[in-house]
Amino acid sequence: MRPSLLVAALLGLTPIASARSQDTVRFTPTVGHPTFAVREPVLRIKPNTVLISNTMHGAYYTREGGPFPGEVGPFYVEGATTNDMLVVRIIRVMPNTGLAAANVSGGFGGLQSDSRLRLLNEPIPSRRYLWELDTTRMVGRTTLPDSRQQSIEIDLKPMLGRVAVAPRGQEAFGGLWPGDFGGNMDAPEVREGTTVYLPVFHEGAYLYFGDGHARQGEGEVAGTGLETSMSVILHVDLVKGKRIDWPRLEDAQHIMVAGSGRPLIDAFRIAHVELVEWLQEYGFGKWDAYALLGQVAENTVANVVDPAYTVVAKFPKRFLPR
Amino acid sequence: MRPSLLVAALLGLTPIASARSQDTVRFTPTVGHPTFAVREPVLRIKPNTVLISNTMHGAYYTREGGPFPGEVGPFYVEGATTNDMLVVRIIRVMPNTGLAAANVSGGFGGLQSDSRLRLLNEPIPSRRYLWELDTTRMVGRTTLPDSRQQSIEIDLKPMLGRVAVAPRGQEAFGGLWPGDFGGNMDAPEVREGTTVYLPVFHEGAYLYFGDGHARQGEGEVAGTGLETSMSVILHVDLVKGKRIDWPRLEDAQHIMVAGSGRPLIDAFRIAHVELVEWLQEYGFGKWDAYALLGQVAENTVANVVDPAYTVVAKFPKRFLPR
Amino acid sequence: MRPSLLVAALLGLTPIASARSQDTVRFTPTVGHPTFAVREPVLRIKPNTVLISNTMHGAYYTREGGPFPGEVGPFYVEGATTNDMLVVRIIRVMPNTGLAAANVSGGFGGLQSDSRLRLLNEPIPSRRYLWELDTTRMVGRTTLPDSRQQSIEIDLKPMLGRVAVAPRGQEAFGGLWPGDFGGNMDAPEVREGTTVYLPVFHEGAYLYFGDGHARQGEGEVAGTGLETSMSVILHVDLVKGKRIDWPRLEDAQHIMVAGSGRPLIDAFRIAHVELVEWLQEYGFGKWDAYALLGQVAENTVANVVDPAYTVVAKFPKRFLPR
Amino acid sequence: MRPSLLVAALLGLTPIASARSQDTVRFTPTVGHPTFAVREPVLRIKPNTVLISNTMHGAYYTREGGPFPGEVGPFYVEGATTNDMLVVRIIRVMPNTGLAAANVSGGFGGLQSDSRLRLLNEPIPSRRYLWELDTTRMVGRTTLPDSRQQSIEIDLKPMLGRVAVAPRGQEAFGGLWPGDFGGNMDAPEVREGTTVYLPVFHEGAYLYFGDGHARQGEGEVAGTGLETSMSVILHVDLVKGKRIDWPRLEDAQHIMVAGSGRPLIDAFRIAHVELVEWLQEYGFGKWDAYALLGQVAENTVANVVDPAYTVVAKFPKRFLPR
Repeated sequence: MRPSLLVAALLGLTPIASARSQDTVRFTPTVGHPTFAVREPVLRIKPNTVLISNTMHGAYYTREGGPFPGEVGPFYVEGATTNDMLVVRIIRVMPNTGLAAANVSGGFGGLQSDSRLRLLNEPIPSRRYLWELDTTRMVGRTTLPDSRQQSIEIDLKPMLGRVAVAPRGQEAFGGLWPGDFGGNMDAPEVREGTTVYLPVFHEGAYLYFGDGHARQGEGEVAGTGLETSMSVILHVDLVKGKRIDWPRLEDAQHIMVAGSGRPLIDAFRIAHVELVEWLQEYGFGKWDAYALLGQVAENTVANVVDPAYTVVAKFPKRFLPR
Repeated sequence: MRPSLLVAALLGLTPIASARSQDTVRFTPTVGHPTFAVREPVLRIKPNTVLISNTMHGAYYTREGGPFPGEVGPFYVEGATTNDMLVVRIIRVMPNTGLAAANVSGGFGGLQSDSRLRLLNEPIPSRRYLWELDTTRMVGRTTLPDSRQQSIEIDLKPMLGRVAVAPRGQEAFGGLWPGDFGGNMDAPEVREGTTVYLPVFHEGAYLYFGDGHARQGEGEVAGTGLETSMSVILHVDLVKGKRIDWPRLEDAQHIMVAGSGRPLIDAFRIAHVELVEWLQEYGFGKWDAYALLGQVAENTVANVVDPAYTVVAKFPKRFLPR
Repeated sequence: MRPSLLVAALLGLTPIASARSQDTVRFTPTVGHPTFAVREPVLRIKPNTVLISNTMHGAYYTREGGPFPGEVGPFYVEGATTNDMLVVRIIRVMPNTGLAAANVSGGFGGLQSDSRLRLLNEPIPSRRYLWELDTTRMVGRTTLPDSRQQSIEIDLKPMLGRVAVAPRGQEAFGGLWPGDFGGNMDAPEVREGTTVYLPVFHEGAYLYFGDGHARQGEGEVAGTGLETSMSVILHVDLVKGKRIDWPRLEDAQHIMVAGSGRPLIDAFRIAHVELVEWLQEYGFGKWDAYALLGQVAENTVANVVDPAYTVVAKFPKRFLPR
Repeated sequence: MRPSLLVAALLGLTPIASARSQDTVRFTPTVGHPTFAVREPVLRIKPNTVLISNTMHGAYYTREGGPFPGEVGPFYVEGATTNDMLVVRIIRVMPNTGLAAANVSGGFGGLQSDSRLRLLNEPIPSRRYLWELDTTRMVGRTTLPDSRQQSIEIDLKPMLGRVAVAPRGQEAFGGLWPGDFGGNMDAPEVREGTTVYLPVFHEGAYLYFGDGHARQGEGEVAGTGLETSMSVILHVDLVKGKRIDWPRLEDAQHIMVAGSGRPLIDAFRIAHVELVEWLQEYGFGKWDAYALLGQVAENTVANVVDPAYTVVAKFPKRFLPR
């Protein structure tokens, strides 16, 4: 049995793209990068590759103020051109340590002043929560220092905060940024079973990933998820001759678009207008698609803390033409 | 059997507030009002009343450009003061005609220029969709004039766009407005099984309701839901000595806050900050509550078309202290 | 000499609309209203009337927490219909007491959290500044409790925060609101020598004015101007058969539009799009007008504290066709 | 006479920083860069240097769709560290060709849909205006194809759209971006006689400049100014041990801060909060400074078209302590 088929079998998946030759690649990152940008690739992979790897681990997860370990990548996807769409199927995202950290911080968060919402109010106090992760029971537990209830246990829903290609031209966005290149979308929907479609702005696409969250609330309002390192399996592929403007997502229930921008309504509109365009590809007229979104659209405000906010617009697949 | 218990039995509900005397009132509205404001009440009711009524029907639902029939109410709730919280339990919301209307309009909508997002672009074209409603099968069907697929059928999820008290002082907001007084929140969560808690700004509260949607997408992006008239059963009650700042919602799964404002991020923040305050009432510390929302909050952008946008912030009840 | 001509002479003005009969009316308000709305007029006046009056005085100006005295009006302008434009020429705005008050407040302001920008930060402290006004030298002086410099003297630039007609239909907006009906625009440009043009939404227009500021910074960032009561002389007139969508202003240098809304960019766009339309009335093509604004427009953010923000877009009259 | 003193004399300026040794450097750029970022410097200069140069010329200015020639720089300023403030005094900005171009574009502009304000409306049409520049009379003239008035002449007010240092870390922002690093602020205030103070994020600062506008309206609403190439003379200096967060400007009348961000209110708040901090450096208490801004602040919305908007907050120097 070929390793890729083995992976597929272990995960209970139908073999992907079985007609084409599938590679399976194991990659252990040794360096994390602070920006999404064109730079020397860490690896060249072919389309239709199962990439078995992990996010970077580092002090960010283990001590207060520790530096963020950065993004894994870039992976140069052979044959990818600016006329193509990159396909990243999330096969596995699973915490690989027993601890996650989450912060409330005077300098960063969605319900408070910070460096972008600059006000005369005093900043809020900073506080760090350590969460013990149990990946057998798939729960996390932390203490609540100021609550009647001393601790809390919640179920885990592991996700990747960041999946990206290199942005346009010579631009280099810090790891906190989401955009049309993907990046730090911080969307809980980027989890096992979801496929992420990304535009390609450079030959080779330059795929990055990182920023695992054992769980994250919609909006990521306090500024972080349950930040931890992850074992990751991605199936990376290419659709030739297909151009999109913004990251699209798909799972069993929905087709989705992740629009990012500030103000929040811009992210909302970007996501929904791109979704109208996607529906047109399914044969809906433009105004019919708009009217239909008015009745069946769903949405998630994914993050309200990053330099650009992210909104995920969703259309239930059961309303797509068969 | 008392009528209220009969209602409860018919609906399969536990009798509400059974220790206190419960009234059941049938009210057939004859006039709809264009604003939320203090005005001569249509009826005085006691706390702990089951109100069996319907929204106004009118030309708005049957012909293009027909005037909106307005809000039902105000109901003067005896004993309600500005120190209390009004409780409106949605027992029943069900379309009572076979037709709903939905518009795409050059003058109003979330993914386009309109009177508030005033731009130099040409307005989009207007179009009206008539939906046939089948409340036995609980589906709606319309034709899609410009799509490969000629028509579409979707399941119904009836809701009330508007539940309100009179706003502060002498202010009178048109029916399109949501705010801290409730109003046109256009939240799909305001459906059977949900309880709406409202602040009281005047003695008597002055309860209004209206604007039935047989279904509405999250965001109401195209400007309307499946607009139709509804049979409505509400249980109206009062919590004495309890003050809240913004409408709160509760169903079997979540406690929720509906924050309204422009820009969208303001609505988002209002909803989440009020939710932090609600969690504090459950014994969570302020920063613990914030931190926890960061991991388990859910949200819906309810509308992006009204004079104020509405965001519903949600906290899963399974994480509340027992 | 007729009183109106006397007024004109005293002010060094060319008699206004001398061909038509001009009235001069002295009106001393005894009651202030808390909303802009249709209500029983305090006076009926004809077009082409010089109205000599004053804003309400009250505890708001003399003690912390004193209630705002409300708006003067409404004046029913005979013959005004929804096809007409109301003309309000500001002939005189002059403080008529020796004191003005200005607040920094935990509950209201532009560089801080408040009831609309609701955050988890602690509110800022409140503080009240009393300003002594000298209308001979036209200066104001206050003490600066926390500054190296113990006090400061600034020149006065008296203005009216509020000039309004009754808004559409049965809506009633509290005195803090600006909108297409004018209202609390808080634009420093509404001063002696400026003409305010307002749309008319009801027969009779229902003119209101109030909220004198002996001076106010652009943006009114701390929440108030130098709040005081004013002697006011307005010339009220009508342009028949002329419809506008938003308040327009004109002085010796500029034609201007005051757009109000939230978010701030909406106010900005409303003001500039209406200005493009005004330029089209002067014979500029739509895209020429837009292009020209790109090179010669000026703007003021008038307020960032009211329920809707106000931006004044300006076009220099020297670039208008002769 | 040393060249720098010659320059000063020619311009009627007091010699700058005469106690220290002043360099005068002539630099003719041969390459323009598309991003603000750390890269190999084109030149190393000492603090207290008069830099005589010009912006890049290129096809952008002469034919529709021509590529933008990019930024001049980076100049490595010797001795600059992240504890210092870079000082860039604008001694001269003067068009050096007889032509400027300005666009109205379906893809970019402030009163229309574009790639960031993505809507379902059809885009507006594109149009290019060529302006003849007469730097003797200091006027520009263009034809107005759709206006009753066939052409228009306006006075020139040359400015630099972009003055920047390299942004933090490895980030690289495209030339359209403004930020705390300066960049494409598009503020008309960046003209002869104005000093720009910039924070330093890297040793050497990495100064860039470019994007000359023979004139530009406040807001740059249509997307461009009168775009042309410029002769530029800058005096570049350093204040050691002085840290600022955002670009500060100073001219004869005002101290100013240029805050950039989206939404517009964020840019507004950044500018004004930094201005409060600057006033504190002059000895004003924090709340006194806030209160005073409420009465005497002035502002300009500089651009509403770039990836971040820019607002300039101003405080009149006559109210500063002597």
